[in-house]
Amino acid sequence: MTKAAVFGTGSWGTTFATILAEAGTGTTLWGRRPEVVEAIDRRHENPDYLPGLALPSSLRATADPEEALDGADFVVLAVPSQSLRANLAAWRAHIPAHAVLVSLMKGVEIGSCKRMSEVIREVAEVPEERVAVVSGPNLALEIAQRQPAATVVACTDESVAERLQEACHVPWFRPYTNTDVVGVELGGAVKNVIALAVGVAAGMGLGDNVRATLMTRGLAEITRLGAVLGADQHTFAGLAGMGDLIATCTSPLSRNRTFGENLGRGMTLAEVVAATKQTAEGVKSCESVLALAGKHDVEMPITEVVVGVVHDGLTPAEAGVLLMSRTPKPERYGV
Amino acid sequence: MTKAAVFGTGSWGTTFATILAEAGTGTTLWGRRPEVVEAIDRRHENPDYLPGLALPSSLRATADPEEALDGADFVVLAVPSQSLRANLAAWRAHIPAHAVLVSLMKGVEIGSCKRMSEVIREVAEVPEERVAVVSGPNLALEIAQRQPAATVVACTDESVAERLQEACHVPWFRPYTNTDVVGVELGGAVKNVIALAVGVAAGMGLGDNVRATLMTRGLAEITRLGAVLGADQHTFAGLAGMGDLIATCTSPLSRNRTFGENLGRGMTLAEVVAATKQTAEGVKSCESVLALAGKHDVEMPITEVVVGVVHDGLTPAEAGVLLMSRTPKPERYGV
Repeated sequence: MTKAAVFGTGSWGTTFATILAEAGTGTTLWGRRPEVVEAIDRRHENPDYLPGLALPSSLRATADPEEALDGADFVVLAVPSQSLRANLAAWRAHIPAHAVLVSLMKGVEIGSCKRMSEVIREVAEVPEERVAVVSGPNLALEIAQRQPAATVVACTDESVAERLQEACHVPWFRPYTNTDVVGVELGGAVKNVIALAVGVAAGMGLGDNVRATLMTRGLAEITRLGAVLGADQHTFAGLAGMGDLIATCTSPLSRNRTFGENLGRGMTLAEVVAATKQTAEGVKSCESVLALAGKHDVEMPITEVVVGVVHDGLTPAEAGVLLMSRTPKPERYGV
Repeated sequence: MTKAAVFGTGSWGTTFATILAEAGTGTTLWGRRPEVVEAIDRRHENPDYLPGLALPSSLRATADPEEALDGADFVVLAVPSQSLRANLAAWRAHIPAHAVLVSLMKGVEIGSCKRMSEVIREVAEVPEERVAVVSGPNLALEIAQRQPAATVVACTDESVAERLQEACHVPWFRPYTNTDVVGVELGGAVKNVIALAVGVAAGMGLGDNVRATLMTRGLAEITRLGAVLGADQHTFAGLAGMGDLIATCTSPLSRNRTFGENLGRGMTLAEVVAATKQTAEGVKSCESVLALAGKHDVEMPITEVVVGVVHDGLTPAEAGVLLMSRTPKPERYGV
């Protein structure tokens, strides 16, 4: 039997563990807090993140990383992006030599600007064919409710991606394989910046044309950045690019969108931050993304105005004028 | 001065004529009904389609095609798709020899399955470098209100596309050039079929993941069809592909979406048709699109279930199972 250890009892970690268990993969969920671990292991419920939803009885949970990792073929990581490095260093010694490390995380490490799979390879000292990434339009709650969904499982080694595809394929969750790890991760990291822009436009009272255009031209600039970083541009037209971007930009649940909406309504940054409970990821990552683009001479006009509005006092109206007054261009350039 | 004749006083024809006039192009709008022509020419208002909005005083209108066509550099066609052939045959004799014919229409001719630019070339007997297409996320009312928008102007001859770009570029309307006429037209024609699928899912109570996935995999199947028809697959990731698809599938104004939503709620086809005032374009075109795909051995699973639900008594629940139970696949195949 294929075995998996899933680290992180947040809504997506728990939901993905459920999918693995239902697909017949022997799955153990690791969590830090004993009361959550016990609720999952004994009562088959995650009261913090998925209250009221019955988890499969075959899904086990433990607070002991060594126990979770014992014999694991897949080590699935769903911890907060910025704590990955420290966590993984602590668990490294117990990771089986053949195991594939799978990232469910969508972020860029602050400071190093590294993608999660890069951090994994560095800390766990594993070659690229032992690192996979799962990303797509995957709002956890809908999947936990068994609404149909699809995702991308990416690994540079296609046979590894196929094994993971098999390990997490159930009737309501359809994984597609892809060998472009860079592209799949980049889509998940940059979409939050575009969601901020979409939010600002909505807050200004602008309609469907503007939203669709920001998403499309936003994806075009992500694609230009991806091209210089070695990604396959077709990945951005897929579920981890366009798909995740649409879900994030159109879902009322997106924190980045809401943050932008408040800015677009005329609130100051300080007021929006005060009104926001959890951090909007794009607020932090927009500067790193722009720095990365600058280093590679890639034009990212939407990211640029987002940085301006969020960090440099540019008004939403000025941002709109800047975007619309650029020189006329062919639709596809820089790719 | 560049001159344009715009045929059709619907909301998009009128709005595009306004853009041309504001961009400094000498523009005459042709309409069939004298009272509408007079309202536009004298009172600078289109009471039927854009009531209350002031049109530019430089915009002229006439019911005489010969007068409209006199000296026109661009002949812009915004009449109903199915009446294009007959209309154009009547106007043909007066079209200046150097004029570029521009299609604003998004449809496929019933019977011949031809795209609008193909009908134009056939009826007007002009070479491809004299036919251009404008398409993108362009809900007319928002543009008439001067909300910012962007579009694609496509012609196989890039210099013609650039001339048209210049003729319709104003601060709130940003045209991008593209030389892929086939791709730009196909995106506009097939998006309505995907909007039907998105509507059905919404009617079934499904959420953001399903919507984003149907749009992404829908665009993937449009792209596969485009590839065999000679389109450039990158076009589908642009404003006339992804952009128009997003605007149509997320706007509450889309007739196709609403039609699908009623089917998803469990209404029969007869009940939905009875409840629908104007035709939902996708209901007619889904069969032509599927026939075209079949002829070229292209898999279009979403289009297939849309035809099943709309025309062959497949239930929405059965359609969902069919889509989710296909064999696991790499994300990109058939392109």
